[in-house]
Amino acid sequence: MTHPLRKHIEEIISLTDEEFNFVLSHFEQIKKRKHQYIVQEGEIVDKEYWIIKGCLKSYFVDDTGKEHILQFGMENWWITDYESFVKQTKSKTSIDCIEDSELLYISFENRDKLTAQMHKMERFWAKKSKMGRISLQNRILSLLKNSTKERYDLLLEQYPKLFQRVPKKMIAAYLGVSRETLSRLNS
Amino acid sequence: MTHPLRKHIEEIISLTDEEFNFVLSHFEQIKKRKHQYIVQEGEIVDKEYWIIKGCLKSYFVDDTGKEHILQFGMENWWITDYESFVKQTKSKTSIDCIEDSELLYISFENRDKLTAQMHKMERFWAKKSKMGRISLQNRILSLLKNSTKERYDLLLEQYPKLFQRVPKKMIAAYLGVSRETLSRLNS
Repeated sequence: MTHPLRKHIEEIISLTDEEFNFVLSHFEQIKKRKHQYIVQEGEIVDKEYWIIKGCLKSYFVDDTGKEHILQFGMENWWITDYESFVKQTKSKTSIDCIEDSELLYISFENRDKLTAQMHKMERFWAKKSKMGRISLQNRILSLLKNSTKERYDLLLEQYPKLFQRVPKKMIAAYLGVSRETLSRLNS
Repeated sequence: MTHPLRKHIEEIISLTDEEFNFVLSHFEQIKKRKHQYIVQEGEIVDKEYWIIKGCLKSYFVDDTGKEHILQFGMENWWITDYESFVKQTKSKTSIDCIEDSELLYISFENRDKLTAQMHKMERFWAKKSKMGRISLQNRILSLLKNSTKERYDLLLEQYPKLFQRVPKKMIAAYLGVSRETLSRLNS
């Protein structure tokens, strides 16, 4: 059976068996239980994660104690605090598991070595990074336009399966609305 | 004198004279006057721009006719509608010159050819793309936290020279506040 990471990478570039094994040798695998974290606000993040199985949220808590969800992650998504990972500064966000999760991770050093050695993997992550940037740009456009309905629709478009998997209060925390407003959009 | 684009690229990777000339051969140069556009909402964007000189804004107009500024661009910044450029879909934003501007641009096809041939340039743009993503993530964090003062400070940090160059009403359109609120932050 083809490794799920290989399937994922080969949506963008193709790899020989040897190349894929070399790529995979730069990763480690971990399991996390629901409610466990992989990134904590304030730490310097040294790993980028790829989700084999499970569901995660990237979020921060504001001065009033309110949680804001920046991003969800599910199967085949990459997740980390990119500012912390790339600049090696303190993370502004936390990332928790919403479900029991199986993850692959690559360290900053290994990712840097791998992309320096393999043009194809540089190209793969460059493409992923572009797509991540686009999804953030759409989130900004959506936030600026400030229509809750549009934000809801964009979320549904980005993560069609999410609505069956996460509690309503998290959808509300992503949209920045109350549970009551969310119920009205739902109906 | 070193070409400004070479100086810019060599902040991340180093190039021989021959390599830089090869890179530069993929670009074209244009001049635009204040108020002219380089990207119009609804068109498919085929170029990524690098600003030699000048100042630009990327924006959209909402259903009520209100302008929202997504991003400013000044010397040494890359600018385009990335979703349209990468996915070849219709642009959701427009980009206009706020000052007379001199730009280099590279077509989608040329950028793809260049990055496929030159690992170093793939690496350069991958890094730029990561930084772009980080700056968008910070804008989202800032929008979600919803403190105008924080948004103002982030803008000042990202574009320290901007405040001398663009009209106050554009700063307000970026922050999503009225001119009056802006004046209070200013003082």
